[in-house]
Amino acid sequence: MTTKEIGQKLVDLCKNGKNREAMEQLYAPDIVSVEAAAPAGRPAESKGRDTAIERNKQWAAANEVNGATVDGPYPNGDRFTVVFDFDLTRRSDKQHYHQKEVALYTVKNDKIVREDFFYST
Amino acid sequence: MTTKEIGQKLVDLCKNGKNREAMEQLYAPDIVSVEAAAPAGRPAESKGRDTAIERNKQWAAANEVNGATVDGPYPNGDRFTVVFDFDLTRRSDKQHYHQKEVALYTVKNDKIVREDFFYST
Repeated sequence: MTTKEIGQKLVDLCKNGKNREAMEQLYAPDIVSVEAAAPAGRPAESKGRDTAIERNKQWAAANEVNGATVDGPYPNGDRFTVVFDFDLTRRSDKQHYHQKEVALYTVKNDKIVREDFFYST
Repeated sequence: MTTKEIGQKLVDLCKNGKNREAMEQLYAPDIVSVEAAAPAGRPAESKGRDTAIERNKQWAAANEVNGATVDGPYPNGDRFTVVFDFDLTRRSDKQHYHQKEVALYTVKNDKIVREDFFYST
C-alpha cells in the first residue's frame, strides 16, 4: 500500500471513532510514540503497540469524547500527517475543552512504525 | 528562543501575509526544503534560503493569494508544525482553488534548518 492509503485507512477508522482499531490494525508491534509533553510520571517517548493502546485507554478513561474532526491524510514520502481536533469533557471535573494536535506518522512495510504528536503544552 | 517562540514568529508573519519576511528572518542559509511532490523539472528536495525564496516568488507569480488561514504553531521538541489553508486563484486560467498543507519545521540555533511540506498530490 502507499503511504497515502495507509493514512486514509487510519483517518477513516478515526472518523468513525475507531481509534483503537486503527492502532490494532496499522501499528507495528514495536512502534515508537513521541508526545510533545511527558505525561505525569512517564517519559515523552514510549515504545510498543500495547503501550500505545494502554495509553489510549487511560486517556479515554480520563476524557469523554463529545466529538472529533479528523483532517487528512497529508502525505510526504514515507510519512503522513493528520490534524485532530477533539471536543472533550474531562471526567474528573466535567471541564469542557478542545485538544487540537497534528500527528506525524512514519510508515514502513505497510505498518506505522513511529508517531509524533505536536501540540501546545 | 524556544521552538514554540520561533514557530509563533513564523505564524505571526505569515498571518500578516509576510511569508517572505518569515523566510528571510527565520530560515538558516542552508535550509533543506522537501516538497511532497517534485515541481515540474525539479527535485522534491532543494537546499538554501535563496532557493526557497526564489521558489516562493515563482509560486506567487503563478497564484494570486485571495486569503489564507495559518494555524499553529504546534510544537514537539526541536520541531513544530503549522497548518496552512490557502485560497488561491491560478493566474494562468483564473481557476479558483484551495491548497491545504501541513508544514513541519525543524529548528537549530534559533533558525529553521529544514521544512517538510505534507499535502495530497
